[in-house]
Amino acid sequence: MIYFDNSATTKPYKEVIETYQKVSEAFFGNPSSLHTLGKEAEKLLDQGRDQIAKLLQANKKEIVFTSGGTEGNNLAIKGTALQHQSRGKHLITTKIEHASNYEAFQQLENLGFEVTYLDVDQFGIISLEQLKSSLREDTILVSVIHVNNELGSIQPIKEIGDIVKKYPKAYFHVDHVQGISKVPLSLQHCHIDLCTISGHKFHGPKGTGVLYVREGIKLFSLFTGGVQEHNLRAGTENIPGVIGLAKALRMSMEKYVQNKSHLEQLRDYFIKSLNEVEGVILNSPIKEAAAPHIVNFSLPTLKPEVIIQSLGEQQMYVSTKSACSSKLAEPSRVLMEAGLGEERAQSAIRASFSYHNTIEEVDAFISALKKTVLQLKEVMR
Amino acid sequence: MIYFDNSATTKPYKEVIETYQKVSEAFFGNPSSLHTLGKEAEKLLDQGRDQIAKLLQANKKEIVFTSGGTEGNNLAIKGTALQHQSRGKHLITTKIEHASNYEAFQQLENLGFEVTYLDVDQFGIISLEQLKSSLREDTILVSVIHVNNELGSIQPIKEIGDIVKKYPKAYFHVDHVQGISKVPLSLQHCHIDLCTISGHKFHGPKGTGVLYVREGIKLFSLFTGGVQEHNLRAGTENIPGVIGLAKALRMSMEKYVQNKSHLEQLRDYFIKSLNEVEGVILNSPIKEAAAPHIVNFSLPTLKPEVIIQSLGEQQMYVSTKSACSSKLAEPSRVLMEAGLGEERAQSAIRASFSYHNTIEEVDAFISALKKTVLQLKEVMR
Repeated sequence: MIYFDNSATTKPYKEVIETYQKVSEAFFGNPSSLHTLGKEAEKLLDQGRDQIAKLLQANKKEIVFTSGGTEGNNLAIKGTALQHQSRGKHLITTKIEHASNYEAFQQLENLGFEVTYLDVDQFGIISLEQLKSSLREDTILVSVIHVNNELGSIQPIKEIGDIVKKYPKAYFHVDHVQGISKVPLSLQHCHIDLCTISGHKFHGPKGTGVLYVREGIKLFSLFTGGVQEHNLRAGTENIPGVIGLAKALRMSMEKYVQNKSHLEQLRDYFIKSLNEVEGVILNSPIKEAAAPHIVNFSLPTLKPEVIIQSLGEQQMYVSTKSACSSKLAEPSRVLMEAGLGEERAQSAIRASFSYHNTIEEVDAFISALKKTVLQLKEVMR
Repeated sequence: MIYFDNSATTKPYKEVIETYQKVSEAFFGNPSSLHTLGKEAEKLLDQGRDQIAKLLQANKKEIVFTSGGTEGNNLAIKGTALQHQSRGKHLITTKIEHASNYEAFQQLENLGFEVTYLDVDQFGIISLEQLKSSLREDTILVSVIHVNNELGSIQPIKEIGDIVKKYPKAYFHVDHVQGISKVPLSLQHCHIDLCTISGHKFHGPKGTGVLYVREGIKLFSLFTGGVQEHNLRAGTENIPGVIGLAKALRMSMEKYVQNKSHLEQLRDYFIKSLNEVEGVILNSPIKEAAAPHIVNFSLPTLKPEVIIQSLGEQQMYVSTKSACSSKLAEPSRVLMEAGLGEERAQSAIRASFSYHNTIEEVDAFISALKKTVLQLKEVMR
């Protein structure tokens, strides 16, 4: 099996599943319970929170456990807007957000908020000038995706943070779901107030995530009903999930440190090899603005679903667009907004790597892709 | 270990953890992905949904997977209120709801909704007459906890459903978290529109749950961003969690069928033995209005935390009030609302059973409780 769909989801580490299992059996108590079983569970939860805080260079009071990236993004955006609307009802985001951000903003528009959607260039990057001219006295939130999930474009988060910082009423939320452990980000240095990560994108358990919430920030809770997660997110804690997430994050961040250039090498080799495939157009940006683990390309005139199915029969897995939107028939919104045109947006394919992937896999994949493309062109003749 | 805190959380079945592990490894694909791995995951998810639908005698289009009971209750209540506020802004609930319902209603009051909180009698049961007189043309939701998590009181759900049915604008939500697999409920027969259950309360994985949403009902999504869960709850599905939940539900419902009277026998024996403990007052209702797995009693003048700690040292586990509220210093809201008085509400202890508990455990527990009470009274003299 060649799995190049790591931006959709990853295979959990064996160690993570083992941890999940052990914690489920030995620490099943409810951490809110007053008895020993509850206290042991609470202690373990606290250790997990502490470990994650250290990995993110944050304070453990700033770590809010969620059920994943979609929850984190929704809580950050709706939680800020609904809690702080008396300060202002203007919000800023970009045109290439993941659906969980984009649709949260659309929902808020229906509730009477005004949203500015920043344009992006052909590399999927916003203009800092447009951000500056969009910020107002009544702006209460700027929300930007760090690494775009389809193109791999990296936004200039530090520069954005420096600009937003000048507006003390505006919080800065970063969707770091695709960036974490692949494109590092300093929460402090970038003046980030809210930051979303999701466990299953870095070999952690599904249904787990973290929303970083800078100390002192109040949010409108989507889930009320208990004092868990510093009163921001009620519900009995999923401790096996949390401890599994902590382990996956530590392992993935270690892989980054030990093997930083591996993903870049894979990507560069993939792009180079891709040139041998007839008719390919690269959509991802190049160099600094590009994440090391995402390559988006189009094969105009060919149906990407057919290519994906054919490769799937050979146990090689890539995707069209965002997994969360892949069943929608429309062309990719992200590629359209980057001005790549309907044909490219309609025929895009995304390969996304993890640290486990190899150069040999790229060779095998490109060879299979070449054959598939030739066969399909044959059929269409 | 004697674990009588099954209403706080349960130990997951060994089979559930094994299933979780197998699914995590073999079906890690994102069910939204178009390739084979995604389709296999989607198929498994669909099977899990189908199995749960059959167990609940529902249609699989009506099963919405959540991260637990708190999410289910919040989604049902806020989702209905925010989506249907143009029909009316009046909501009805009871004074003894779990905090995840109660606080959701309080949040909605802050957003301009009007909420009627129904009184309860000393058994924790609402008055159908008060419900009838509270229902109005602008009532859009009636939300009632089936089995109260502290007292074990069972509300007359069928009768409530018959009354609410006469108001076609009002939906009927039932918090069935404590009832499922212990006090059965027919969704159809009781005219229930929305029903919450939580995996970890019946030996399923933590961080899993189901909200039953009758076909055709629209909710304001707390999580937007994808078409998952019939467009009601976005986010990558936690398939190992869902399949684990399906297995736990099947196993727990089988235990109910095979061993229906076991919990009742435990409870009756527990209550009978409790009479031997000096100074005990029973708070739970008796007979029909009482759930078979919850016994709430008070030991006035003694601090329940001290009793719980002392029993915990002997590896015997019970709780004070709801786990989600157990760290709050106030007396139990539920017991206060049932008119049991501050002394009883301040000194309440809850024992809650599962099908694994035995008569021998009750004997050992009561014997330890007797000793603990004597020792504490000695100290206080």
